[in-house]
Amino acid sequence: MHISELTTPAVVVDEPALERNLATMCDAHPGAALRPHVKAHKTSELARRQAARGHRGFTAATVRECVGMAEAGLGEDLLLANEVLDMTRLGAIIEAGARVTVAVDSEAVAQAAVAGGVREVLIDVNVGLPRCGCAPTDAGALAELCRSLELEVRGVMGYEGHLMLVADPADRARQTEECMALLLAAHADVGGDIVSGGGTGTWTTNTWVSELQAGSYALMDTAYAAIPDVPFEQSLTVLATVISVNPGGWAVVDAGLKAFGMDHGNPSIPGADVWFCSDEHTVYSMQDGAPLPAVGERVRMVPAHIDPTCALHERMHLVDADGTVLETWPVDLRGW
Amino acid sequence: MHISELTTPAVVVDEPALERNLATMCDAHPGAALRPHVKAHKTSELARRQAARGHRGFTAATVRECVGMAEAGLGEDLLLANEVLDMTRLGAIIEAGARVTVAVDSEAVAQAAVAGGVREVLIDVNVGLPRCGCAPTDAGALAELCRSLELEVRGVMGYEGHLMLVADPADRARQTEECMALLLAAHADVGGDIVSGGGTGTWTTNTWVSELQAGSYALMDTAYAAIPDVPFEQSLTVLATVISVNPGGWAVVDAGLKAFGMDHGNPSIPGADVWFCSDEHTVYSMQDGAPLPAVGERVRMVPAHIDPTCALHERMHLVDADGTVLETWPVDLRGW
Repeated sequence: MHISELTTPAVVVDEPALERNLATMCDAHPGAALRPHVKAHKTSELARRQAARGHRGFTAATVRECVGMAEAGLGEDLLLANEVLDMTRLGAIIEAGARVTVAVDSEAVAQAAVAGGVREVLIDVNVGLPRCGCAPTDAGALAELCRSLELEVRGVMGYEGHLMLVADPADRARQTEECMALLLAAHADVGGDIVSGGGTGTWTTNTWVSELQAGSYALMDTAYAAIPDVPFEQSLTVLATVISVNPGGWAVVDAGLKAFGMDHGNPSIPGADVWFCSDEHTVYSMQDGAPLPAVGERVRMVPAHIDPTCALHERMHLVDADGTVLETWPVDLRGW
Repeated sequence: MHISELTTPAVVVDEPALERNLATMCDAHPGAALRPHVKAHKTSELARRQAARGHRGFTAATVRECVGMAEAGLGEDLLLANEVLDMTRLGAIIEAGARVTVAVDSEAVAQAAVAGGVREVLIDVNVGLPRCGCAPTDAGALAELCRSLELEVRGVMGYEGHLMLVADPADRARQTEECMALLLAAHADVGGDIVSGGGTGTWTTNTWVSELQAGSYALMDTAYAAIPDVPFEQSLTVLATVISVNPGGWAVVDAGLKAFGMDHGNPSIPGADVWFCSDEHTVYSMQDGAPLPAVGERVRMVPAHIDPTCALHERMHLVDADGTVLETWPVDLRGW
């Protein structure tokens, strides 16, 4: 099948660009030094490509992502890097042979892990992003509590998410160092082999973690593309069809705000100014006096934020440079 | 099952509030005077409640919505109020007995209707929102062209979407009148029985259409709730669980930007200030010195925009006033 035959809107992944992104990250963080975050793509077949490059442990944000990865045979070493209270489904996949480690930042979550049948945890440490994580100075006591509940404590995690989009590399590096000093101090109190953290935005600046939790690097978006020292290519686009062209100077495509994560703003169209998105439309005009497209033309749009964009689509199509559809992957880790 | 047993995040619909909303709209626009828009809820079981009140025709924004409605036995009179080029799936459901009318604003779309096996159209007229629709003065010629292609022209549609959230009722009414004057002039040139348009925001101000295309009124959101003369109740909330509480003064729930349409901003939590949403988290503090919740407490969150919120969830749970789950409906019209 050729890309021109796809029903639109459709998520299209350029395979050569995807593979270059995977290779670039793998060179910098080989094997266990990278624990790819599946929340970014929610697609076990894409995770299989990451595993083929030697990254056998994965990061997840939801129970559903862990269950789906285990079902896909990729449950060798899953980290649920999030607090969860209902872990029954995790206990079931652990019974069936998956390895799942969960983040814990309170006694309530530790107790929920025990009740759900989870055996291994990381202490989640707040390193500056006001979200989950215990205070660094409380990490040792929480680890002790977990061990008293017969949970294996594998180490610590701390996510400097508030730094991912800091534009200036030097400023980002300085702030990352401050955050990681907190995490390493907590690690000294907690013990264990793992210091987990970081992301696509700090892929070179965070040199303190034992494993990087990056996810967006594989597919990319306009938010990360704006960071000067993030070299990954835009491999995912949303294919749309021009359905209306107005002599007033605008065109309309059939991919709107239900086809894009909108939390970081509108998607982009190369060479065009996006006016606005409705549920099933994006309206735009052309830059530099370029002519408007004709009804029926196809347009490739670039999401502002990759993670929620993937979560809106049932499938993604892997294409080669000439537009041949090589594989179609279900976005099978969606939902909760 | 009780609401407290649901896996979170979960979409919960208060049945008494839903039924009051349906009744209020039905009183104002009985029977064929309302053509409920299914894009707002994407749920055929909810459409069945609307049909039970006498609204037998429905509006849709995608081919998938039309196909799903036909599969659910609700295909008596479907209007695809959008331009589409690939209508093969519509032709198939028409062959099988559904009635589908499509919007046409160009010769290309009219030709696509013929090629796809669609037999009935409305002329889509631009009444001021810069999106689809032909110029009002071109509507008559386009209708003539459609008839020359042996398409039945049932009338006109024109959506004053740019006026839905105009806060001042008098200003909204004045602008609606101007838009509808354009549509009625086009209708005079086109003919047919149908003048379709309007929405929840102009449910009382648009007195010119023969059928109102409102959808959001059933479930509502904070954007529409801000309009003074829109009396519909918030019947849909997203149920979330508190997973982390920080002595620094914030709490974190397990419903984030992947659980909400974010194009109109963050969701709301009654009595709280929402700080930000991450993929699977919302961080908030309490207003007026109220105490933070405990880990494990449940919170009902209100989306800023209902349509894309529904599109993110696999199911919605209908609950009564005491929290008993009465029915669970698949959000079966999602995707494309």
